[in-house]
Amino acid sequence: MHGLLSESALCQGLDLAPIDGLVFGGHEVRRSDFVASATEIHQNGGSIQWPVLQALRGELRALSRNVVPGALANAGRTIERLVGDDGGKLPQRRPLRAQIEAVQRDIRAFQRRHGLDRVVCVNLTSTEPPLPLGKAHAALAAFEQALDRDDEAAVRSSALYAYAAAALGLPFVHFTPSNATLTPAVCELFERTGAPYAGADGKSGETLVKSALAPMFKYRNLRVLTWQGYNILGDRDGKVLADDDNKSAKVATKDGLLPQILGYPLHTHVGIDYVPSLHDHKTAWDFIHFEGFLGHRMSMQFVWQGCDAILAAPLVLDLVRLVDLAARTGESGPQRHLACFFKQPVGVPEHDLHAQWHLLTEWLQQQRAAAQR
Amino acid sequence: MHGLLSESALCQGLDLAPIDGLVFGGHEVRRSDFVASATEIHQNGGSIQWPVLQALRGELRALSRNVVPGALANAGRTIERLVGDDGGKLPQRRPLRAQIEAVQRDIRAFQRRHGLDRVVCVNLTSTEPPLPLGKAHAALAAFEQALDRDDEAAVRSSALYAYAAAALGLPFVHFTPSNATLTPAVCELFERTGAPYAGADGKSGETLVKSALAPMFKYRNLRVLTWQGYNILGDRDGKVLADDDNKSAKVATKDGLLPQILGYPLHTHVGIDYVPSLHDHKTAWDFIHFEGFLGHRMSMQFVWQGCDAILAAPLVLDLVRLVDLAARTGESGPQRHLACFFKQPVGVPEHDLHAQWHLLTEWLQQQRAAAQR
Amino acid sequence: MHGLLSESALCQGLDLAPIDGLVFGGHEVRRSDFVASATEIHQNGGSIQWPVLQALRGELRALSRNVVPGALANAGRTIERLVGDDGGKLPQRRPLRAQIEAVQRDIRAFQRRHGLDRVVCVNLTSTEPPLPLGKAHAALAAFEQALDRDDEAAVRSSALYAYAAAALGLPFVHFTPSNATLTPAVCELFERTGAPYAGADGKSGETLVKSALAPMFKYRNLRVLTWQGYNILGDRDGKVLADDDNKSAKVATKDGLLPQILGYPLHTHVGIDYVPSLHDHKTAWDFIHFEGFLGHRMSMQFVWQGCDAILAAPLVLDLVRLVDLAARTGESGPQRHLACFFKQPVGVPEHDLHAQWHLLTEWLQQQRAAAQR
Amino acid sequence: MHGLLSESALCQGLDLAPIDGLVFGGHEVRRSDFVASATEIHQNGGSIQWPVLQALRGELRALSRNVVPGALANAGRTIERLVGDDGGKLPQRRPLRAQIEAVQRDIRAFQRRHGLDRVVCVNLTSTEPPLPLGKAHAALAAFEQALDRDDEAAVRSSALYAYAAAALGLPFVHFTPSNATLTPAVCELFERTGAPYAGADGKSGETLVKSALAPMFKYRNLRVLTWQGYNILGDRDGKVLADDDNKSAKVATKDGLLPQILGYPLHTHVGIDYVPSLHDHKTAWDFIHFEGFLGHRMSMQFVWQGCDAILAAPLVLDLVRLVDLAARTGESGPQRHLACFFKQPVGVPEHDLHAQWHLLTEWLQQQRAAAQR
Repeated sequence: MHGLLSESALCQGLDLAPIDGLVFGGHEVRRSDFVASATEIHQNGGSIQWPVLQALRGELRALSRNVVPGALANAGRTIERLVGDDGGKLPQRRPLRAQIEAVQRDIRAFQRRHGLDRVVCVNLTSTEPPLPLGKAHAALAAFEQALDRDDEAAVRSSALYAYAAAALGLPFVHFTPSNATLTPAVCELFERTGAPYAGADGKSGETLVKSALAPMFKYRNLRVLTWQGYNILGDRDGKVLADDDNKSAKVATKDGLLPQILGYPLHTHVGIDYVPSLHDHKTAWDFIHFEGFLGHRMSMQFVWQGCDAILAAPLVLDLVRLVDLAARTGESGPQRHLACFFKQPVGVPEHDLHAQWHLLTEWLQQQRAAAQR
Repeated sequence: MHGLLSESALCQGLDLAPIDGLVFGGHEVRRSDFVASATEIHQNGGSIQWPVLQALRGELRALSRNVVPGALANAGRTIERLVGDDGGKLPQRRPLRAQIEAVQRDIRAFQRRHGLDRVVCVNLTSTEPPLPLGKAHAALAAFEQALDRDDEAAVRSSALYAYAAAALGLPFVHFTPSNATLTPAVCELFERTGAPYAGADGKSGETLVKSALAPMFKYRNLRVLTWQGYNILGDRDGKVLADDDNKSAKVATKDGLLPQILGYPLHTHVGIDYVPSLHDHKTAWDFIHFEGFLGHRMSMQFVWQGCDAILAAPLVLDLVRLVDLAARTGESGPQRHLACFFKQPVGVPEHDLHAQWHLLTEWLQQQRAAAQR
Repeated sequence: MHGLLSESALCQGLDLAPIDGLVFGGHEVRRSDFVASATEIHQNGGSIQWPVLQALRGELRALSRNVVPGALANAGRTIERLVGDDGGKLPQRRPLRAQIEAVQRDIRAFQRRHGLDRVVCVNLTSTEPPLPLGKAHAALAAFEQALDRDDEAAVRSSALYAYAAAALGLPFVHFTPSNATLTPAVCELFERTGAPYAGADGKSGETLVKSALAPMFKYRNLRVLTWQGYNILGDRDGKVLADDDNKSAKVATKDGLLPQILGYPLHTHVGIDYVPSLHDHKTAWDFIHFEGFLGHRMSMQFVWQGCDAILAAPLVLDLVRLVDLAARTGESGPQRHLACFFKQPVGVPEHDLHAQWHLLTEWLQQQRAAAQR
Repeated sequence: MHGLLSESALCQGLDLAPIDGLVFGGHEVRRSDFVASATEIHQNGGSIQWPVLQALRGELRALSRNVVPGALANAGRTIERLVGDDGGKLPQRRPLRAQIEAVQRDIRAFQRRHGLDRVVCVNLTSTEPPLPLGKAHAALAAFEQALDRDDEAAVRSSALYAYAAAALGLPFVHFTPSNATLTPAVCELFERTGAPYAGADGKSGETLVKSALAPMFKYRNLRVLTWQGYNILGDRDGKVLADDDNKSAKVATKDGLLPQILGYPLHTHVGIDYVPSLHDHKTAWDFIHFEGFLGHRMSMQFVWQGCDAILAAPLVLDLVRLVDLAARTGESGPQRHLACFFKQPVGVPEHDLHAQWHLLTEWLQQQRAAAQR
């Protein structure tokens, strides 16, 4: 199964949860069901082929029943508008504490209903506008006070989910760039309850290429002067990122890696534009201008034409299985060895894809050794 | 000085020969002098700028006197024609042994005249047509018999230089893809005289990118179905490679790396075409077709626009200084840690640029440690 | 219906045969049926979507019965091998005259069976290796003598079809680059029987772009130094063109237009390579190097990612309707106004797409005027 | 001389002013001289080569004396800042009428000093922020009242030059996208004084390609869904366009042509970003998404790598000679036949480059015919 690292030779000999043993559920603020979504993907982009769609129809219909109404707090104008666009209506404002408890009840009920050993939470909400972080996010006590006084300005929807998971001691994967999710306050709670967490922002396309390619310039002492990147994409993801607020969060995680890898400041730009006709066929053009011997300037360009969902879905499966394994073997805190999956890895300022890969392979080696003891 | 690794932070603390201490000389079969060549480069590609050209004119004129007539043996129609095109005339056929001795006399005279500690030989001859290798190349004794009976079919020009250097125990860098140079027979002589050697075929452009990028697909378990590469270039290099015989040698070193990095066979193609108007501004377009989750196919393209001489020149300086350092610290044989500089590294079947980089940094670390003892 | 010019505003007011009134039939040397072909296209490239495939299944099955065994003469190794690959077997060698008569009988039977007003013949055979043209092709009498003495070396399969159509006075569209089809001898027969003919080699992708773009350089007096084009494609078309013989025919029609449009010779190259994983998703990269004011050199590149069948199919429908209209209104001979559809237009040495467009719009204007009289 | 249409075969037989007979002068608000500018271009981009620079040094120095301090009115923050950046200082605010008279005196003095037959004015000021046009720009009388009451908000610098030229009855070329220049009020004055004028915004790069390529999609009835264009450029032009206000004027002229050519609305985007390292080597990437037969979607991309000054300079020479010819032969008003030179042609809503070319060649034909009478 291509795209899925946890099914490759690399992960042989590890005690990973079997894919067939996974049960999927979730929270959602839009009206949606998996069959309709899969059909839309089939029609718009062709990345789910007709026979696959037919084969999965029954299972998708059943899994749709595992999706329950989600939390929504201070989500920003664009996300709120999209909830309405899809024929839903914005839920009534509910107290933050009540929303968190509802999320926790839902998770426990889901676990009981399906007789699951463990629930792993993954944040796949739309990219939220950046939240100005302050005292309320620096320490757990302050954050809980903000929750207690129902201070909606101190949270975004994703913060409620992260807090809910942390409090329950559940492994957590933060797959989006939203900065309100894994704040120091929430991380403190994860440390306290002993659950592993990983993030942020799945690295599946243009940024993946950047992190593989930038080291090459370092290896040759070629000075990168400029790295411009332009991303065009459609569908709901593109619609959300068309809002400058939401886009700014994404640009931040996509743009930070080059100075870290190269070791010096340079001119960079990350553009993201909404192109409805592309649906999920994301296209990126990067232009790299660099200087070599005798000050001579040369350039390189690349064009990435990937299907975001197809690239991201297996990463989510890999991450779920790997944080589950970590939890099972008693690990907690930031999962630094999963850096290669993220645009902004928690706990380790390493963006070089190859260095990140070494972190992962070393950890897998240790896990394999431990499993054989 | 960008492009030059040996002047970067990476090489600090090493006892490298200072660049100012290097004296350049060489063998050449065409009529040429450095001022004319540099002027041609300035006019055609602009990669040597006017003020640099002016500043170096005197030194280049002086260095031109260090260039003496070179060996030429079984070089193939295209190289022989180019000798004539440039206003020279093909030298009379001389016995192989006599040519080798002349090369060695030239080297020794050059060393004496400039009072040099050590001479490092670098093969920068045009890409030769592949030589069918047989018994005469498998062992030193057989090769020397071929030389003794003046069997020109058993050599190419570059073999004479490599043999001459090996016999004198001089460090040797094989910067081209020619397969007649570092044959097992010649390597045996290097081992016997205790000189280090490195090669083959400097990795400066499209192949460099390939070796940086291919691992990314492995890291994500994305199956590469096809990797097509098209190179267009002008100048003498392009003219030589327009000959299918010479091209085949180049294609072989450019095309072999992907299955090694990825671990499976795939559809690859390397095109090289002569485009006179480009002069030294080489352009390459690569198209990569790959399969991800659910069998969905996606693609990536890159365009590399580099100036070959500007990219290759500092590699030569780096390699000269590094094999000189190796010789000085008593190392001999294939310099595996220099793999990152070559399309077809001798002595180590490793093409992943990042793995190659680790080999280099480890060696430098050891050298640095030794230097501090 | 996009892609179809004859359904656009441009063709309003013309007495074109309605698409629903067309009945399709043909000759084929491979074992094939339309349902299997359409299913293969659906699976490999997605360009025929599942619901369309389902809706057409019955009609395709019915139409498959209109396909009868075709002629095969001096077709070249690759085409002959493909016949075998597809599970068919090479038909026994039959006399050329007998093959022509069989084709004619098939056409007449097809026409009678479906009660058709007129049959239009379209040559869609695979690209044949170029045939050395000689005296036998220069005049009808000589060609008929060659047929009489059953001289297979004087023909290719497509010549038999063209002769058969010409002799019956049927309109003919030559959609491939094969040079054996519309020879002067065959054109003489078309003139004699008064049928219109058009060709050669449908212009659907990279060459279309070339013919639209090259005039721009002329308009600005920018001197094009080099125009390199690289085409990669899969499926049966790619397989046939992987044979250097067949490819040479294609390259000739793709490469000739630039000097005609620009008015001076220039360095050009057309590469065609077989990339199985692409199926019908043809990709082309063109690099254009040009010189402007003060001799400064600049460049332009384009990448064309088209689906050949999707682009070619409507051209065939357009051409069938337009030559049918021509025949109905009493026109005969080379259809110069259809130049914009072809890489090598018969009867008019015009490759500039915009000039070709003017030829077409003028003719349509005349037809419309005549229709209103 | 490539790039220069007026020196090509197209213009033979016309009574154009000889290039050697042109004398250049101008107004400038920065401190500058031609030698310094040419040297900067040589060093940064190489588009003026060293020997050319050397050969022209004396003439450039002499011509620099023809440049006098220019008008500046309501120019916007970025242009005003650049005046300061270059070591100049913002001139004191002067009354609009006084500035116009000064410009006119300068022009007349320049003409007298050099004994010139005619002065042609070309607006080459930096792109100004769009001016909200109102009653004051709709008619000459209202505009002159605004000048009389010294209403700076009603003008930009370029309006003063245009008015000055119109009042003197001088031919005028508007080479930038600024909307304050050729307002209806100013055009009314040109009509009254009988001078020809042309504009707006020289079409030299990405937009030129767009206008050549877009018709192709129309010719094939291929529906363009999306046309995204991204421009990156450095130098002073890039700096000015980095200001969103100034950029908006440019984007408007670059983005309007597609619906006109194609005949329907579509999703378009024009990005312009400042990349200092590129200097004058402008690079543009365009992505075109289109739909063909059976609703299948395909794409095309192009990359344009041009040197803006090298492309624009000969257009200015061509335009000067052509409007001079028009004036000499008694033409006045908007020069519709010069549409092919502009992104937003005055007086004719035609963006199709090929249709524009026909307008030009027809006019040249008439001029040639008239010249021979």
